[in-house]
Amino acid sequence: VTDQLATTLAQIHGLDQAALDAATERQDRLTKPRGSLGVLEAVSIQLAGLAGRCPPPIPTPAAVAIFAGDHGVHAQGVSPWPQEVTTQMVANFLAGGAVINAFAAQADVTVQVVDVGVAATLDPVDGLLDRKVRPGTADMTMTAAMTRAETLAAIGAGIDVARDLVAAGNRCLLTGDMGIANTTAAAALISVFTGVRPEAATGRGTGIDDDALAAKIAVVRAAIERNRPRADDDPIGALAAVGGLEHAALAGFILGAAATRTPVVLDGVIACSAALVARALAPQSVAAMIAGHRSAEPGAGIALDILGLSPLVDLGLRLGEGSGAVLALPLLQSAARVLRDVATFDAAGVTEKDG
Amino acid sequence: VTDQLATTLAQIHGLDQAALDAATERQDRLTKPRGSLGVLEAVSIQLAGLAGRCPPPIPTPAAVAIFAGDHGVHAQGVSPWPQEVTTQMVANFLAGGAVINAFAAQADVTVQVVDVGVAATLDPVDGLLDRKVRPGTADMTMTAAMTRAETLAAIGAGIDVARDLVAAGNRCLLTGDMGIANTTAAAALISVFTGVRPEAATGRGTGIDDDALAAKIAVVRAAIERNRPRADDDPIGALAAVGGLEHAALAGFILGAAATRTPVVLDGVIACSAALVARALAPQSVAAMIAGHRSAEPGAGIALDILGLSPLVDLGLRLGEGSGAVLALPLLQSAARVLRDVATFDAAGVTEKDG
Repeated sequence: VTDQLATTLAQIHGLDQAALDAATERQDRLTKPRGSLGVLEAVSIQLAGLAGRCPPPIPTPAAVAIFAGDHGVHAQGVSPWPQEVTTQMVANFLAGGAVINAFAAQADVTVQVVDVGVAATLDPVDGLLDRKVRPGTADMTMTAAMTRAETLAAIGAGIDVARDLVAAGNRCLLTGDMGIANTTAAAALISVFTGVRPEAATGRGTGIDDDALAAKIAVVRAAIERNRPRADDDPIGALAAVGGLEHAALAGFILGAAATRTPVVLDGVIACSAALVARALAPQSVAAMIAGHRSAEPGAGIALDILGLSPLVDLGLRLGEGSGAVLALPLLQSAARVLRDVATFDAAGVTEKDG
Repeated sequence: VTDQLATTLAQIHGLDQAALDAATERQDRLTKPRGSLGVLEAVSIQLAGLAGRCPPPIPTPAAVAIFAGDHGVHAQGVSPWPQEVTTQMVANFLAGGAVINAFAAQADVTVQVVDVGVAATLDPVDGLLDRKVRPGTADMTMTAAMTRAETLAAIGAGIDVARDLVAAGNRCLLTGDMGIANTTAAAALISVFTGVRPEAATGRGTGIDDDALAAKIAVVRAAIERNRPRADDDPIGALAAVGGLEHAALAGFILGAAATRTPVVLDGVIACSAALVARALAPQSVAAMIAGHRSAEPGAGIALDILGLSPLVDLGLRLGEGSGAVLALPLLQSAARVLRDVATFDAAGVTEKDG
């Protein structure tokens, strides 16, 4: 691993027990029935444990980083969308015309677009960060998607983006992604890092029929059989074999968030697959992860179960871009605000229930 | 019925078909896979149909009205909380110390507290609207909870609050409630207005054990057997028999929203029971309803199914106060923003998928 990655991994620690205890105890003294805020109570306690204090800071300002990359496996016909849509959507993000822009504007979230591997050469424009490692991955059914050096470079780009956004004052990071065919790489990663079979980890992405799904599963299986990745012994090698440049960057982004003790809201299946890689490299990085939403992709649910995360939004979204993470942010902020602002039974003069 | 209610009912119409069609067609031309925003697409189309134009206005500014009342059936031991907690929590709302205050501050929502039937006499303070109809309902296991005149007065208070908030510039209304034992009245209303048995409609409220739940179900059954309400023939009479003052006010509030074509976000089981009453009085009022969240109360789910509404938030909340509605607001606003702000494939120069 690079010095940068080693330094980052060494900075990652678990949740602070004293802050967890203080937040748990405080939740039970606030003027509401115990447990009546469901998942939001657990999330607020996690935020306290991550921050090392109770109440934790409200996770704002926030930024979503959209890592964009292309995929050699697109040549296998896994997506009904032409590959140039990755480039076109990057332009759409930069012009402010995509769904993520609308959601980010509503939630007051900064959008940072990062080219880590778009196949086309993009003109330098305001708002686009050029961290291109290579113009798209290789076809993972033929060879490894990336070299080890490329994989580490993409991870490094993600770490840098996370650290830079935190240095700029952001107190919450959100994952975004763009890459036609990137649910195929995500399915392969989830299969490899969890041990579930390709047919369980693979979904319909942005929308394919039964025949196309069967073909996509066969492609995922072929990529794994061709590369024989071993996630336990060599997570970087497994990521290089069947991942994507944006998946690698997102793994680095998550690790960078964890190293700076900044909550990182995972979007959908791409982020979930990257989170499994981050966990393999640093198990304690899970402490910083918040599940934004329950993606329609089956692999996302498998990953969230293993990560032990409960999603905040469950609306049948299957868009990507960071959309589910940005939608979840106000819920996360509201959860944190409860610990800071809500009065205790004693302070408010409210009688507690009998028994 | 009163003149006010008759006027309101006459102003309620269904969704505008041309605007629905325009919004449906527009969703399919936006730069995202068709249907990839799940429930948010349906909600955005509903907002267009309600507004009568596409794109619909963003539902902001918004206000949550918390209708507070007490319940004679509390004497039957249906809640572990003493009745004075209703009054204490009203004071907590007004002091800004409750969960609803934290959530409302986060979502930039105005909080309007309305006393329609708190048992204690409340001191006039800034922010508290006094529309008390009577100091708590009668015990519905002994007699009707309210008279018909009281029920109409509470409905009228709800209509007035809705109209006043809309006149003040609010473009979205959210339901809130406070009343120890009010899930018992809600369960009775849901049983009466849907025909499900009391044991299916009754839940644990803010938290009771199996024995207490069995006793609560018996109380709901006793109230229905005592009063024999007939929701089909006489919805006002049924509401009077087994409802509550805040339930009646919320029914009026929902009707007032529908009459002014303002979206109204339903919170939990109390709002859902009131929505059933509103639907019985004006079936087209459902056009204005948005389900804020899936309450942990079983009766709420039954009501939402009958209303045909999909909840935006599903986090195991069981608090009330309007908390689930306020949490849903940013999701609703984001849904509306998509129709207004997102570029079409043509405009953005993005290629559509094959087939």
